[in-house]
Amino acid sequence: MTTITAVDTYDVRFPTSLTADGSDAMNKDGDYSAAYVVIRTDDPDLSGFGFTFTIGRGNDICVMAAAQRALPLVGRNVEELTADLGGIYRELQGDSQLRWLGPEKGVIHLALAAVMNAVWDMAARAAGKPLWRLLADMTPEQLVEVADMRYLSDALTKTEAIALLTELAPTRAARIAELTGTGYPCYTTSAGWLGYSDEKLRRLCQEAVDSGYKHIKLKVGANRDDDHRRLAIAREVIGPDANLMIDANQVWDVPEAIEWVNSLAEFKPLWIEEPTSPDDVLGHAAVRKAVAPIGVATGEHGMNRVLFKQMFQAEAIDFCQLDSARLGSVNEILSVYFMAKKFGVPVCPHAGGVGLCELVQHLSIFDYVAVSGTLEGRVTEYVDHLHEHFVEPCIVENGAYQLPLAPGYSAEMFESTLDEFSFPNGSYWASRALEPAPAMG
Amino acid sequence: MTTITAVDTYDVRFPTSLTADGSDAMNKDGDYSAAYVVIRTDDPDLSGFGFTFTIGRGNDICVMAAAQRALPLVGRNVEELTADLGGIYRELQGDSQLRWLGPEKGVIHLALAAVMNAVWDMAARAAGKPLWRLLADMTPEQLVEVADMRYLSDALTKTEAIALLTELAPTRAARIAELTGTGYPCYTTSAGWLGYSDEKLRRLCQEAVDSGYKHIKLKVGANRDDDHRRLAIAREVIGPDANLMIDANQVWDVPEAIEWVNSLAEFKPLWIEEPTSPDDVLGHAAVRKAVAPIGVATGEHGMNRVLFKQMFQAEAIDFCQLDSARLGSVNEILSVYFMAKKFGVPVCPHAGGVGLCELVQHLSIFDYVAVSGTLEGRVTEYVDHLHEHFVEPCIVENGAYQLPLAPGYSAEMFESTLDEFSFPNGSYWASRALEPAPAMG
Repeated sequence: MTTITAVDTYDVRFPTSLTADGSDAMNKDGDYSAAYVVIRTDDPDLSGFGFTFTIGRGNDICVMAAAQRALPLVGRNVEELTADLGGIYRELQGDSQLRWLGPEKGVIHLALAAVMNAVWDMAARAAGKPLWRLLADMTPEQLVEVADMRYLSDALTKTEAIALLTELAPTRAARIAELTGTGYPCYTTSAGWLGYSDEKLRRLCQEAVDSGYKHIKLKVGANRDDDHRRLAIAREVIGPDANLMIDANQVWDVPEAIEWVNSLAEFKPLWIEEPTSPDDVLGHAAVRKAVAPIGVATGEHGMNRVLFKQMFQAEAIDFCQLDSARLGSVNEILSVYFMAKKFGVPVCPHAGGVGLCELVQHLSIFDYVAVSGTLEGRVTEYVDHLHEHFVEPCIVENGAYQLPLAPGYSAEMFESTLDEFSFPNGSYWASRALEPAPAMG
Repeated sequence: MTTITAVDTYDVRFPTSLTADGSDAMNKDGDYSAAYVVIRTDDPDLSGFGFTFTIGRGNDICVMAAAQRALPLVGRNVEELTADLGGIYRELQGDSQLRWLGPEKGVIHLALAAVMNAVWDMAARAAGKPLWRLLADMTPEQLVEVADMRYLSDALTKTEAIALLTELAPTRAARIAELTGTGYPCYTTSAGWLGYSDEKLRRLCQEAVDSGYKHIKLKVGANRDDDHRRLAIAREVIGPDANLMIDANQVWDVPEAIEWVNSLAEFKPLWIEEPTSPDDVLGHAAVRKAVAPIGVATGEHGMNRVLFKQMFQAEAIDFCQLDSARLGSVNEILSVYFMAKKFGVPVCPHAGGVGLCELVQHLSIFDYVAVSGTLEGRVTEYVDHLHEHFVEPCIVENGAYQLPLAPGYSAEMFESTLDEFSFPNGSYWASRALEPAPAMG
């Protein structure tokens, strides 16, 4: 019998604002950060690692919330807990007093993600499997039992969810074999941050093409002339057949989004990402209608499964970009995948930041193996930075995530990273006595 | 010239769970709490008081977030700040790193509400006016300038908002005179908490009728037989003509809500409140269609103006119950009122908790005076507890809020309350060494 002895939390921040990595029309100076959670047990070989992702200030608020969310875990039996991953999710999520602070959104939900990501990591380690495999080895009934299906029955019942998973169950092994050879296709955002010069943009686009990527994403929305010039450069470098995506990071009202996006149509974007408020289901539906055949994508700020349910019901999006550290971990992510399958919307998870790539590779692989059964229209984000802080970093080759094989959810950071980048007392921050960024963005 | 010298924050919690006040189908053991903010200036006669409302655990998280939100206020000139209440709102709200934690929802938005409520309180005190009067003395252009209209232009442009306010401007004075005589009508929820016995329910319904209330609200949704019995008692006591409202506090999925509510139709409820997830615009629209003529009400967990915009666009609600401590203070509340006017939906603000009645009286009065111009279908919540902690408590007579006359937003608590109920070191909590409630609800 194994017992949880402690849950430790860490405020880890990286000074990415110094190099304009991650700069976009809404977020000019992000310091990529993780509210990082470590579940310790009385077995020295078993821990669980998880996090949620933020961009700097306020990471401490998420850390505090995660510590409160995790309290009920201490003293619990690991075998019981990993045998009922739906039960522990519902217990933590159902705390009525903490629920009031969302409900199911914002800091309190990010904190649930951090804690439950660590629980899932621990469960996969305990089973000796990578997370995608732990999920792929579950029956349809088990998957629906751990999923959070509350408030979804008008769009998808548990019976329907079991039926759609059952249909693909017999062929899971073949798809695992296939992915073992090819990996799961990804695209890169590393080229297109707003803060980069035209020259750097051109060079990075060329490097991306040379590395085998067939999709490139650029940030837009700050200045229309700049957008035209940058998109022209990108399209010139990648050629007419590669896919070019654009991302506005929520800067527009709905009418402005429609006009601006249509003015960029000549560059044939595959999708416009986050054209307006991430909460605006009806707004996204209106934009989608008005900018077709350009697709609409959103989800990195999609707060919970109820939002995604409505995005599907309203036919508001062409691509679902769920976030592995904003939704309530695997439990809630599963139900979004189930709905996406029913409504025929490809899921192309948001990644980048710090550690998100490490997480989403598991989700995309599982989706192909057990839920969607197709790669058509699917491509998962990849951003090439901060992987060196992870014990089992994702591996991307030929524009594809290679299957992770180590047990867990790939979420563990090196101790040396915690020592260096813990805020404000890690060696990096202490030695520079730097604020992570000016007081107001 | 007056300068802000400090912003102090307090974690204030009241042990309401001991008496089942506030118990409903989702929240069984709330300890009504305030993340309380005091803006201090170098003028000993000028401070600003504000708060957001929570139900216990996690109030400290909101306090921490409010302290971060408030940082840019320290050292600022009060006259400049109160002359541009839209500017300071946009500055605080626009912090891109904190924005990531919402955006515009959950803890980070509750914290913005607490801080901006204190700013508005300070502005009204500086002007020597109650908040409703400060607003009623603004021109249509000034009101639209301070309102947060971002992401709303597909539903309501600034020009439209100015036009609808201008129409009522000449007759504001007459409505102020009218309300000075009658007060603003309210209803009571004090009778209907789930944790109360049938006998207590009957007695409290009778007392409410005797006190002049024409609307009574009961909590439902935990057990269908109990709901039938309790509604029968209430209807018997209040008679066929008084209004009976029911409140499910989000316990149902959409199909279940429709079935359950229709099973209570014989008691002729005026509205069903929070039938399902507060995020579910399309779900509320479906419920509304299926339970008519019973109305649908929601809003106390309505996270921001973008949600309310969609509720209006989708014709999802009959009554808009915005919350004065969850929306981003007056700036965001104004735009919800403007949209409600355009879409013809009465606003009946959520109140109760601690201090919410003190705030919403100002909002309802302003709405009648300057936005809606009618009382038809309007009634504002009132719950009769915890008012004794406020320096200028709301006054309810004959089922109506009487016009507050003291300068400010009525948000100031007594020093003695802070000394007694600050958590965990106030005299109440320290002497009992009590946790506010068991670790899990």
